[in-house]
Amino acid sequence: MPETSVVALLRQIETVGADPERGGYSRHVFDPAERELRDWFTERAGELGLGLETDRNGNIWAWWGAPGPDAVVTGSHLDSVPGGGPLDGPLGVATALAAIAALQLEGFAPDRPVAVVVFAEEEGARFGIACLGSRLMVGAISAERALALTDAAGTTFAEAATGFGLDVAHLGTDREALDRIGVFVELHVEQGRGLIDLGSPVAVASSILAHGRWRIRVRGQGNHAGTTELADRRDPMVVAARAILASRDIASATKGVRATVGRIEPVPGGTNVIASQVSAWLDVRAGSDAATLDAVAAISAAARSAAVAEGCAIDIVQESWGGQVLFDPRLRDRVATALGGVPVLATGAGHDAGVLAAVVPTAMLFVRNPTGISHAPEEGATDEDCEAGAVALVAVLKDLL
Amino acid sequence: MPETSVVALLRQIETVGADPERGGYSRHVFDPAERELRDWFTERAGELGLGLETDRNGNIWAWWGAPGPDAVVTGSHLDSVPGGGPLDGPLGVATALAAIAALQLEGFAPDRPVAVVVFAEEEGARFGIACLGSRLMVGAISAERALALTDAAGTTFAEAATGFGLDVAHLGTDREALDRIGVFVELHVEQGRGLIDLGSPVAVASSILAHGRWRIRVRGQGNHAGTTELADRRDPMVVAARAILASRDIASATKGVRATVGRIEPVPGGTNVIASQVSAWLDVRAGSDAATLDAVAAISAAARSAAVAEGCAIDIVQESWGGQVLFDPRLRDRVATALGGVPVLATGAGHDAGVLAAVVPTAMLFVRNPTGISHAPEEGATDEDCEAGAVALVAVLKDLL
Repeated sequence: MPETSVVALLRQIETVGADPERGGYSRHVFDPAERELRDWFTERAGELGLGLETDRNGNIWAWWGAPGPDAVVTGSHLDSVPGGGPLDGPLGVATALAAIAALQLEGFAPDRPVAVVVFAEEEGARFGIACLGSRLMVGAISAERALALTDAAGTTFAEAATGFGLDVAHLGTDREALDRIGVFVELHVEQGRGLIDLGSPVAVASSILAHGRWRIRVRGQGNHAGTTELADRRDPMVVAARAILASRDIASATKGVRATVGRIEPVPGGTNVIASQVSAWLDVRAGSDAATLDAVAAISAAARSAAVAEGCAIDIVQESWGGQVLFDPRLRDRVATALGGVPVLATGAGHDAGVLAAVVPTAMLFVRNPTGISHAPEEGATDEDCEAGAVALVAVLKDLL
Repeated sequence: MPETSVVALLRQIETVGADPERGGYSRHVFDPAERELRDWFTERAGELGLGLETDRNGNIWAWWGAPGPDAVVTGSHLDSVPGGGPLDGPLGVATALAAIAALQLEGFAPDRPVAVVVFAEEEGARFGIACLGSRLMVGAISAERALALTDAAGTTFAEAATGFGLDVAHLGTDREALDRIGVFVELHVEQGRGLIDLGSPVAVASSILAHGRWRIRVRGQGNHAGTTELADRRDPMVVAARAILASRDIASATKGVRATVGRIEPVPGGTNVIASQVSAWLDVRAGSDAATLDAVAAISAAARSAAVAEGCAIDIVQESWGGQVLFDPRLRDRVATALGGVPVLATGAGHDAGVLAAVVPTAMLFVRNPTGISHAPEEGATDEDCEAGAVALVAVLKDLL
C-alpha cells in the first residue's frame, strides 16, 4: 500500500548522500546521491500510479491524471547544500507524495490535474546558481549562460546535463510546462526561528527577501611566505579578509540586511605561500531590491579600496539575482484560511516557489524547525510536525481541487 | 655522455607536474609527478655510475665512491609547493648532478666519498610539515607523529609511505645515514631580492629565520545565510578574517617579523551557508625564536578574543617549528672564500640544510632570482646564473674534497 507517512518516506532515504566529513548530506544535481533520490522518487510516484516525465531542464513531473492545463502543482527539490540537513527539499517532495497517497486512500477524485514536481539544482551548490531548474523553465536565466556554468571540478553544466541524458539543445524556457501550471504550492521546512514562538507547526509565506550572490576575485602576487618583506607584499588574502569584515559591518549597520561569506578559495592555497589569488563568494539579502543592492555597493566599495591599498586587482561579478518576492495575496489568504488561520511569515531563504511566483499564482507552507538552524546537519522538525505538514498540504490541495 | 649543463638537465623535467590550473608546478611527495622526478634522478645518477639507495625515510642517496664516513654531501629536493616555480628544489639537485658530471669529465678523483641527496617532502605541501624527510632522519620529528599526518584527501603519511614501498616500521632517526655525512652543502634558487642589487649570481647563506606553522581552527554554528539574523550568528569566517588582519598588523608592527595566511578552508564551504568551521594556517618567521613566538602569541590573543566576541570556539595548534639557524661560520667563510668572496646573505626560507645544520657542518649557496618571487610560477633564474651556480658548486666540492 502506498506510504502516507512523511516520516516513513524520509526514512527510506536517510542514508543517501550522507556526508561523513561535513556531517549531514551532500546531494548535488546529477551526482550519484541526487540520482539515487530521483530513482527513489520515480519509484514512489510509480506506486501511486502517477505518470512520470523529466522535462527539458531536468525537472521531474509526476502526474495524477492527464497533464495540465490549470493543474495544481506541489513539490520541492531533492538536492542539498554541502553538509545540509535532511529536510531542506526532501520534506516538500515526501509530503507531496504522502498527501497524494492520503487523497487516493480516501477516494478523493480531483477535478483538476495534479502534479508533484522535483526541481533540479535548487541550492546551486554544484553550479553556483540557485533554483537553476525552475529559472531555466521560466526563462529567468538563458540556456547559454546555464550551459557554460562550471562546478568545482571544472565540469560544465552542459557536460553534466548531457551525462544525465538531457538534450542540451532543448534546454531553456519551457512554455509547455509552464502553461500547464494553474497554481504552485511548495511545502518547506522553516529555515529560521519564526514558528518556534508562535505555537503553530505550520505557517504560510508572505514574501521572500531579495537575494543575490557575488564572486569577489582578488589578484595579487603569489610569493614566498618567508622571504617576502611585508612592505613588498600584494596579498589577496588580506583584501579578502577586509571584504569579509566589511560585509559583516555593513550588514550589521542596516536593519534587515544579511551578508555572508561562507566560501573562500585561495590559489595556490599553500601554508608557506602568499596567495596569488583569492575568491570569496558574497551572499546578500534584504527586504527590498534597493536595500540589497545598496549593501552590495557599500561592501564592494570597501573591498575595492582594500584592494587598491594592497596593490591588488579586484573584480566583483554578480552570479545570481532574485528580486524581492511577494506571494500572491489572494492565494496566501485562501491557503491560510483553509488551514484555520495559521500564521503568515516572511522568509530570507530563496525557493523555486519564489521563481515561479513571477509567472503563476504561488504559495508556500512552512513546517516548524525547533532549532531554527538550516543548511546544516542540525536542521530538523519533529515527526509530529512533519505529519502535521502533510495534513495541512492535504487540506490545501482539497481546497484548491 | 653525462649532462654537465644544469639548464639542459632541468629542461628534461620541464613538463613533469605542470599545474594547468594554478600555473607552475605541483609535485608532492609520493604523487605521480614526484615519483616521475625520482625516476628521472635515479636514471641520471645511474648514468654517472653513482650507487643508489632510498633510505628508511624516503630520501634518495646517490654515491660517488663507497658510502661514507666523512662524506661531502650535496643536493636538495624535488617536491614543490602547489603551483610552485621550476627551480625551488630541482635546481639544487640538477646542479649537483651537473657538478659531479663536470668533475668526472675532468678526471677529478675525490679523496672523500661524495653523495647527492634528494630529500622527501621538503615543502610540507602534502602532509603539512616542511623538511619531513630530513627531520625524520635527524630525529627532529618522531616517527609516530609523522606516520599519523594526513593529506587533504585524508590519506595518512603511513599509507602514502607504504604505498611508495617504505617499511614504516623502520621510519625515523637514521644514525647510519647521519654518521656518513661529513659536510652538507645545499644549492638553492634565492627566494628573495637579496642578490638582485649585489651584482653577483651566487651567494653563501649566513642564517635562516626561526619559523613555525600553526593551524587556527574556529568552530561556530553552521546556518542558513538568508534566514539567520546577524545577531544570532556565530560565524567562524568572521573570526578567521579578524585573525588574518591581526597577523598582518602584528607582523607589520615589529621589524623582521613575517606572518602569512595562505591557506584557509571553510566547512561546509557553501555560498549560501554560514560556515560551521573555518581552519586558517598561519606561517610566522622572525630573526629570533623569541620574536617569532612573541608574534604568534599576540596573533593568537587577537584571534581568541575575536572568537569570544563571536561566540565561537577556537584552538590553535603548532604544526611545525624550526628555531633560528646559524650556519657553521667556519664552513660559511671557507665556501665564500673558495668562490672568491661572494656575498653572504640571510634567508627567510626554510631548507633541509637548516635541519641538518643542527647535527653536521652545513652550508648553502644561493643563485640569483631576478624576480625575487618564490613559491610561485614567476620564480626563475637566468640560464647563465644557473650555470654559474654549477661552476660555484664544482669549486666548493673541489675545495672540500
